[in-house]
Amino acid sequence: MKKFLDENFLLTNKTAETLYHEFAKAMPVIDYHNHLPPDQIAGDTNFGNITQAWLYGDHYKWRAMRANGVDESYCTGATGSQFPGGRSDEEKFQKWAETVPYTLRNPLYHWTHLELQRYFGIDKVLNGNSAPEIYARSSELLREKDFSCRNLLKMMNVKVVCTTDDPLDSLEHHRAYGAQGQEMKMLPTFRPDKFILIDNPNFSVYLEKLGEIVGFEIRSFESLKKALEQRVSDFAALGCRLADHGLEQIYAADFTEEGADKAVKKILNGQALSPAEALEYKSAILHALGVMYAGRGWTQQFHLGALRNNNPRAMRLLGPDTGWDSIGDFPQAVGLSRFLGRLDEYDQLAKTVIYNLNPADNEVIATMIGNFNDGSVAGKIQFGSGWWFLDQKDGMIRQINALSNMGLLSRFIGMLTDSRSFLSFPRHEYFRRILCNILGEDIENGELPDDLAWTGEVVQNICYHNAARFFNF
Amino acid sequence: MKKFLDENFLLTNKTAETLYHEFAKAMPVIDYHNHLPPDQIAGDTNFGNITQAWLYGDHYKWRAMRANGVDESYCTGATGSQFPGGRSDEEKFQKWAETVPYTLRNPLYHWTHLELQRYFGIDKVLNGNSAPEIYARSSELLREKDFSCRNLLKMMNVKVVCTTDDPLDSLEHHRAYGAQGQEMKMLPTFRPDKFILIDNPNFSVYLEKLGEIVGFEIRSFESLKKALEQRVSDFAALGCRLADHGLEQIYAADFTEEGADKAVKKILNGQALSPAEALEYKSAILHALGVMYAGRGWTQQFHLGALRNNNPRAMRLLGPDTGWDSIGDFPQAVGLSRFLGRLDEYDQLAKTVIYNLNPADNEVIATMIGNFNDGSVAGKIQFGSGWWFLDQKDGMIRQINALSNMGLLSRFIGMLTDSRSFLSFPRHEYFRRILCNILGEDIENGELPDDLAWTGEVVQNICYHNAARFFNF
Amino acid sequence: MKKFLDENFLLTNKTAETLYHEFAKAMPVIDYHNHLPPDQIAGDTNFGNITQAWLYGDHYKWRAMRANGVDESYCTGATGSQFPGGRSDEEKFQKWAETVPYTLRNPLYHWTHLELQRYFGIDKVLNGNSAPEIYARSSELLREKDFSCRNLLKMMNVKVVCTTDDPLDSLEHHRAYGAQGQEMKMLPTFRPDKFILIDNPNFSVYLEKLGEIVGFEIRSFESLKKALEQRVSDFAALGCRLADHGLEQIYAADFTEEGADKAVKKILNGQALSPAEALEYKSAILHALGVMYAGRGWTQQFHLGALRNNNPRAMRLLGPDTGWDSIGDFPQAVGLSRFLGRLDEYDQLAKTVIYNLNPADNEVIATMIGNFNDGSVAGKIQFGSGWWFLDQKDGMIRQINALSNMGLLSRFIGMLTDSRSFLSFPRHEYFRRILCNILGEDIENGELPDDLAWTGEVVQNICYHNAARFFNF
Repeated sequence: MKKFLDENFLLTNKTAETLYHEFAKAMPVIDYHNHLPPDQIAGDTNFGNITQAWLYGDHYKWRAMRANGVDESYCTGATGSQFPGGRSDEEKFQKWAETVPYTLRNPLYHWTHLELQRYFGIDKVLNGNSAPEIYARSSELLREKDFSCRNLLKMMNVKVVCTTDDPLDSLEHHRAYGAQGQEMKMLPTFRPDKFILIDNPNFSVYLEKLGEIVGFEIRSFESLKKALEQRVSDFAALGCRLADHGLEQIYAADFTEEGADKAVKKILNGQALSPAEALEYKSAILHALGVMYAGRGWTQQFHLGALRNNNPRAMRLLGPDTGWDSIGDFPQAVGLSRFLGRLDEYDQLAKTVIYNLNPADNEVIATMIGNFNDGSVAGKIQFGSGWWFLDQKDGMIRQINALSNMGLLSRFIGMLTDSRSFLSFPRHEYFRRILCNILGEDIENGELPDDLAWTGEVVQNICYHNAARFFNF
Repeated sequence: MKKFLDENFLLTNKTAETLYHEFAKAMPVIDYHNHLPPDQIAGDTNFGNITQAWLYGDHYKWRAMRANGVDESYCTGATGSQFPGGRSDEEKFQKWAETVPYTLRNPLYHWTHLELQRYFGIDKVLNGNSAPEIYARSSELLREKDFSCRNLLKMMNVKVVCTTDDPLDSLEHHRAYGAQGQEMKMLPTFRPDKFILIDNPNFSVYLEKLGEIVGFEIRSFESLKKALEQRVSDFAALGCRLADHGLEQIYAADFTEEGADKAVKKILNGQALSPAEALEYKSAILHALGVMYAGRGWTQQFHLGALRNNNPRAMRLLGPDTGWDSIGDFPQAVGLSRFLGRLDEYDQLAKTVIYNLNPADNEVIATMIGNFNDGSVAGKIQFGSGWWFLDQKDGMIRQINALSNMGLLSRFIGMLTDSRSFLSFPRHEYFRRILCNILGEDIENGELPDDLAWTGEVVQNICYHNAARFFNF
Repeated sequence: MKKFLDENFLLTNKTAETLYHEFAKAMPVIDYHNHLPPDQIAGDTNFGNITQAWLYGDHYKWRAMRANGVDESYCTGATGSQFPGGRSDEEKFQKWAETVPYTLRNPLYHWTHLELQRYFGIDKVLNGNSAPEIYARSSELLREKDFSCRNLLKMMNVKVVCTTDDPLDSLEHHRAYGAQGQEMKMLPTFRPDKFILIDNPNFSVYLEKLGEIVGFEIRSFESLKKALEQRVSDFAALGCRLADHGLEQIYAADFTEEGADKAVKKILNGQALSPAEALEYKSAILHALGVMYAGRGWTQQFHLGALRNNNPRAMRLLGPDTGWDSIGDFPQAVGLSRFLGRLDEYDQLAKTVIYNLNPADNEVIATMIGNFNDGSVAGKIQFGSGWWFLDQKDGMIRQINALSNMGLLSRFIGMLTDSRSFLSFPRHEYFRRILCNILGEDIENGELPDDLAWTGEVVQNICYHNAARFFNF
């Protein structure tokens, strides 16, 4: 019987223990995609208590609480008529703590206890009884200077964080942070979804705002491209090297610049687009963006397959990104093939990372990347680590196995948090343990040679060096 | 080397053994969805021999026999020109017994030997040689009073069975059984597929029959809804608390009551519907039924993803449900999202169980349910246990893992047989062993705390209490 | 710690060791589907060095090298402007050897070292350092008579190879080989994809060539069917018993002979077909071919689900089949059901093997086959072994498990290489070890009785006898 969450957590054999403790553990962290708030990093703020750090904004926890029969007032704290509110931070924490035992086998159970151990040195199990003590102790620590946002990241040996930023963002916090000359890099990531999803009713408002930022009116596809190019340039000036896109599927219909231009003009004239016209625009802009990224040596990321905002009642009351999204079952292969193929045909394909949300598509993605590895860069097209609902042991193992079987695990750029939470960084440790365990098992089973030097090097590459080289950090 | 099917069958560690023997084993059974014949329960009949109990009507066994090269005359016993028949029950059993060794690694192999052990105390392996002895012994027992239909259920500690019933059914056997005041509950389930699938050539005949039962002619969507509501009421009067639907996909197109009404009238006038008209009707009636169920506090079940009646020759000769169905690959996410979202928007979403047949969709379903858990009921929307082809070790493990990773396993209402067979109830034991083994492994690996009291409580909840509370039995 | 690739490679328990060494190992090999070049078998040629045997034509290795950042000139050796070439065989081998350590966990890693051990007795790990010595030794052996193409097959105990041949092929090498009276059978397989894919711009050229071979002009669907029937007859005269088709999906739209005829005539007149017309033709010809195969007692094979030629730049420079294909996510169930059902309805369904490329569809295929097993032949419809990207440990295990859970593993006709390489035959050993390990584990876990005689018979059936009986070799 192994102790819960001891030093050899998730390591089921001696070789895995060696790989983790002697090779993986000490490697710094490059968190190349997350949703951390730049202002809190630039300002190096402190949280007032553990509820603020853990429960404000964490849709994973909210979903678990709701599934456990907990009222919304303890989750988002919404105080509308249907969700009477006014709960205190202590009350919310208590309800979360009472839910934790019910999350057994869910990644939340591991994340919660890993975070309590790693940041606060608390190795008690969280439940309704232990809640008050754990609330008091963790909140007390969080108010100390050593637990400021930046110090939380330092505790986890973080060298680089890449936030996710809107082309409409002023980037003022990135600029301010840059001016501080900190050792840890914080870089913006260009996420232009707003300018792709032309069927959003606010699209023309976004065009107007973008026009204000770049200093010229956007009246055409041409001027939109020029404006985005200018923002790409602004982002690049602050060290940006990645773009990101969250889409159900890749848009890769036939298009012409004229067609895209007509679509933009229709919207500006207040006319509606047919689905085909919208798709043509989306296909055109996605291609145009891809060309821009390639020109700058950036890496483009695609998060594919989420079906968002499924609950209209919650959408009305709470808005997006409050825990009502799920995994879709969209076809992915043909669109990806066309999109990547068109860019590659004229050598305009940037380094690319594809994250997919439906694990049934793992093998589609794991083989698709191989179609565009042309030998120019090792691991040029990457199958991204288990994302969102797949960011757990089973999801990581399946992604690692699919990539191993159909591509080169050794060239994988590894883990990222994709998180809004400063306390989520033990997920890098979680990933590393799983990776080491898989490789250790293979060695112990005679499926790999007992060559710790090489396997250890592969581990260190996946934990750190591959990403450092790939992104040139 | 572990003995085949011994007391620790499927339990690979000590903790799992404890969880199963001390917590799971003694829990009563709530079989909240099956296809048992109400007349045989009300009449408490006996089978004449093991072939009648095992092979009459079991399409799983027929499929295995056919795949093994056994002639149809030994399966369904069809005596048409292509399938010359006239086989005796002994002959059929012999052919089945000869097939059993060829079913190794198929769930039939485990089910067969579990059933022989649990009901008849026979622990021999069934094959061609042992067939005559096993036929004689099990048939002899089946003719004893202790092996009547009800006593077979009692042997398995069954407290509640929910059969599956047609709105056209008289429910006479449920009424008769209710009048007997038996301790074991037998409740009807409302399964109105006939009134959803408007493209079935018999649809207008069904409307006519339904009209006769409710005492008024059905000439419109409105009167059809009224008639179904009356049947819902009749079912409720006999203790019904569940509805069930078997559909390829959820129907959730845009609809109006007028459109649905037009479709009903066209059919009554002998006119054909376009696919879009049929879909509009189906979407309308499914929504209307959902509203009825919510109004009564029922639970609605959806069995999604079967592709039925694939073999036209067999369909012509043997009819439906004779073993020619398989797993489909229909998109499920968007339809489910729209259907559930529309009901939820005005608080008309009943408790819901979604069973899916294609394991590639497990994660879609496991995350979809989370979009409609609003905190009002713990585990309000359920991901149903491994169904039909997935009702086996691998299928159960994958369902349990998907649910664990993306929802709350602890709130799962657990196993059901979905079976036509009185001898199928050891599948609850099968499920429980698998569940205990998964949790035991996690504890022994240090992935869960060694807290047997809590884990045991979770096990007992999943085996019994969650369902009892959820359905209010 | 188990030694890498020792005699018990992939066997994790004693029972598995017994099953493999005492039952599986000595069984001869029937490689009923591959892409070996008939001329090299008929001519019994030797390779000049290991690069010729291993790297000329192996798109698996090329993909791995490209993913590892190796220039195309070392892969295909293409010498176009974008891919400057002129690399020697030694240089190519060196680059491959340097890539091998990076392929850890990819099947290439196991295949490479298995092949070095089995054919050349080399048990060193291949990498940049060991490359020169391994190149010299293996190349030296390959030039010896004992390592001629036929002797390489004999080393692996191969009794039958079925190559894959075009209806336009002269079959001269098969004829020549047949005349030699060799013990090992080499039989052609009929692969008429060219005559199915009517949207290929060369379709009319193919018709013309076929007309020349059969001695009459092809001007109609009727004459095309007659021509193909004649080629089927020619193939059969040389011992052919299988057909094969590589398709994204099965074509099974409604069709008439008239519609198909119209499509053929349009093409002959240089007119374009609408997608619906092309689909009608494809559905018609596929059905017609199925009828021909059934009439001759052949087995029809379908390789479904590949998305080919994804990289337009590589397609232009290197042509098809050079490593730019991947797994598609096409719906498969409905088309298969209609196609097989139509043939079966009038008893014109040949024995069939369905290989699928997307593992998410495993369960769809594993259940689909059961719809057309009518008891006439044991295992009449087969779920083919893990194919292409799935031809690895994980892929094989998943195929075996899906087939076990949903059909009869015991009736499985087992492994095939589907390979262009004379050195790929240890993949049969690889498969056998995995099969034995799965069955051994079940026995040791008490999930199967400890009956080695029966389980060993099942193993030998799957390794050899099932295929021998199924194809009547």
